[in-house]
Amino acid sequence: MNGETGRSDALFAGIDIGGTSIKWMIVDSKGRMLFEGSAPTDPDSVARQSAELAGDLVSAHPAIAGLGACCPGIVDEDRGIVVYASNLDLREADLRLELEEAAGRPTRLLHDGRSAGLAEGLLGAGRGASSFVMIPIGTGISAALCFGGDLWAGASFSSGEIGHSPVFPEGEACACGQRGCLEVYASAKGLVRRYRAAGGEAAGARGVEARLGEDPRADEVWAEAVDALAISLTQMTFALDPERFVIGGGLSRAGDVLLGPLRRELASRLRWRKAPEVVRAGLGSAAGRWGALIAAARAVGSECYREWSVLERAVS
Amino acid sequence: MNGETGRSDALFAGIDIGGTSIKWMIVDSKGRMLFEGSAPTDPDSVARQSAELAGDLVSAHPAIAGLGACCPGIVDEDRGIVVYASNLDLREADLRLELEEAAGRPTRLLHDGRSAGLAEGLLGAGRGASSFVMIPIGTGISAALCFGGDLWAGASFSSGEIGHSPVFPEGEACACGQRGCLEVYASAKGLVRRYRAAGGEAAGARGVEARLGEDPRADEVWAEAVDALAISLTQMTFALDPERFVIGGGLSRAGDVLLGPLRRELASRLRWRKAPEVVRAGLGSAAGRWGALIAAARAVGSECYREWSVLERAVS
Repeated sequence: MNGETGRSDALFAGIDIGGTSIKWMIVDSKGRMLFEGSAPTDPDSVARQSAELAGDLVSAHPAIAGLGACCPGIVDEDRGIVVYASNLDLREADLRLELEEAAGRPTRLLHDGRSAGLAEGLLGAGRGASSFVMIPIGTGISAALCFGGDLWAGASFSSGEIGHSPVFPEGEACACGQRGCLEVYASAKGLVRRYRAAGGEAAGARGVEARLGEDPRADEVWAEAVDALAISLTQMTFALDPERFVIGGGLSRAGDVLLGPLRRELASRLRWRKAPEVVRAGLGSAAGRWGALIAAARAVGSECYREWSVLERAVS
Repeated sequence: MNGETGRSDALFAGIDIGGTSIKWMIVDSKGRMLFEGSAPTDPDSVARQSAELAGDLVSAHPAIAGLGACCPGIVDEDRGIVVYASNLDLREADLRLELEEAAGRPTRLLHDGRSAGLAEGLLGAGRGASSFVMIPIGTGISAALCFGGDLWAGASFSSGEIGHSPVFPEGEACACGQRGCLEVYASAKGLVRRYRAAGGEAAGARGVEARLGEDPRADEVWAEAVDALAISLTQMTFALDPERFVIGGGLSRAGDVLLGPLRRELASRLRWRKAPEVVRAGLGSAAGRWGALIAAARAVGSECYREWSVLERAVS
């Protein structure tokens, strides 16, 4: 137990508020997971639902000393406000304060992507890097940027929206109204859509992956996804010069089937400079919650999370 | 005079070591320029030439309290070392120490692009922005990234090499071995090369600019340069979400002939988010020296540069 909290039995609660479900986890000061749970998101009252959950968790576990929560959208972490989150139907929502009042415990609010980046940096695959870009690849693609230990949220809390960065400016149309966005080619959704458009049949990105080496259409859309990702990583390498890229999200489960060709393609595009490392994220879909738990500890001034060894357990 | 230096008559010297010439400037603690000069670079002994200049300046002006210098290449500012600078023929050169020993004054070494970014941020067109990207467009194109007051040098001191970021991945070949790099289309050199390839005749980028509205070939290469820049700024906006872009270098002299269409093209590519401001740099080609002068003041613990009003004089 880190003495800074002044209580030897302090617990921390982390809540990941998503568009589909709200997931939570309670750990002790050693980072041992004691309880976890989830509930379907009620899209009509996300803030109230989250606040009630926070209150319930503290009622059930009064030893909770601090609370952290994360959610998607445009999040002002300094003010603890959700500026806008379309799929949670929140706008200028004072979510941090609502949770804190319901829980009666110091509370912090984070953006879900930066929360995952925070956790990967301190507990996961970003450890030891002075700078890294964490890129979760799922339905969409985003990035959390960490420079010298600090996550950069952006001037309008909108950094890391690389899913809509143009990789092939004359390319296929994107739902955003532009052409050739990274997501069109390299998100799990884009991959499956393009495989189906080529005449293939697959329930999901794993299905496309399973057909690699057997179906040339799968090989082609996979290679184009790798190309698009490599172009995006090339852009970021030249602009930011990060030490490491940490690839997460559903598509990262493909492991070296994705990362192997991605590393080669990136290196070939960076002829006159060394490529940053490209590694797989370590904390899986729990990264957002772990980031919220770190924020919960910080909310009470504790640095106990520095002793947590989540990655070893996640890997073993 | 800022009392921190402990001397009311302290002067500061800034030296910009370039591949063609070495330029220097001496200011007092109010930022008033007292002396300036330049000399052709001796490519065979840049380090010795710079050290001798530093010694000569202090001999001539013993009131110099601190010294700052900047140069191109890969510069480790913490260690004060030029890791590699091809056009200065320097490799692992302990340039900061050489200058400091020759001058007998506290000395700091900066990368020239970041030095210019530092000056634009504190004294020029970046003032008041929590974050900005300064982009000098000349023979090549680079960027200095400023987040929350700090310049990000990169994990290997190589941030901001956006000239080789791919904007049209299937595009024209670049000298770097890749295709479709930003510089191919949008550097002053690239612009002139493409105009000539289209059959036009122009001595330089100003010549191409002078033919806008008269020669469709000039209009076309100019529009393509704007397109390429807008794509690069779009990539950086989505990834970094800076508050402002500061455009400098020779091509920025075109003013709104460049910035007008660039702002429009950027906005059209960012349909669902507001575009960062796009402004012209304020300090011109002296920006690197002003950054070196700020570093010179910092070398002796002075913050007197906060009172300097360079921009007003540069504009007036």
